Amino acid sequence: MSRTPQEEANLALVMGLFEHVLGPMDSARVDEFVAADYIQHSQLAPPGRDALKAFLDMIREQTPEAVHDVKRAFVDGDHVTVHYHVRRWPGDLGWAVIDIFRVEDGKIAEHWDVLQDVTEGGPNPNGPF
Amino acid sequence: MSRTPQEEANLALVMGLFEHVLGPMDSARVDEFVAADYIQHSQLAPPGRDALKAFLDMIREQTPEAVHDVKRAFVDGDHVTVHYHVRRWPGDLGWAVIDIFRVEDGKIAEHWDVLQDVTEGGPNPNGPF
Repeated sequence: MSRTPQEEANLALVMGLFEHVLGPMDSARVDEFVAADYIQHSQLAPPGRDALKAFLDMIREQTPEAVHDVKRAFVDGDHVTVHYHVRRWPGDLGWAVIDIFRVEDGKIAEHWDVLQDVTEGGPNPNGPF
Repeated sequence: MSRTPQEEANLALVMGLFEHVLGPMDSARVDEFVAADYIQHSQLAPPGRDALKAFLDMIREQTPEAVHDVKRAFVDGDHVTVHYHVRRWPGDLGWAVIDIFRVEDGKIAEHWDVLQDVTEGGPNPNGPF
């Protein structure tokens, strides 16, 4: 590994987002991790930090047992990649998700994601993770 | 940036896969980039290097104008992340894809991906890339 202290800090910031915000679906801690003017590229999310908070409040209400199970995470300069499994309820096959975050001045400044349903019985006996 | 020479080589290997194999859909050059016993996690692909070659031959036959438009790529140790836009024909909205590759001994040894349809008219005016 060749991660610089800055890269370790960028990775830790994003892991903190998963631990304290996305995992518990806690909108109250968004501002600690996400810049006010962050650029959202997710196709499913309206832009803006308030929209993110409203989304977290909605999913905590609708799927209080949802889990964000991080499988692997990487950092290269300002960019952090996280591969994880969202299950909305016990037994849910859920989604495979890869997020890319750009960190600037100690906050998440930009976010891209790609989301896919996890399926059973496809052509590949290896799991998606 | 803090990339080591090994990380630069890993990134270059994967960029070579896009340039010489995925872009031209050229099954003849797979063996230069992909290990014989690589582990495939894509839900859409049967495992094995021969299956990858058959898949490339099929898509080149069915969608000869397909493009793999790389938007950003990162490396952290043995792992390379690539975010790209597949369009199967001119005007196709296509797919947003993020691939993660693990490189071992100068070849791609493991591959994960997540794929999502690009849509129009969603809640986010920012594009997915």
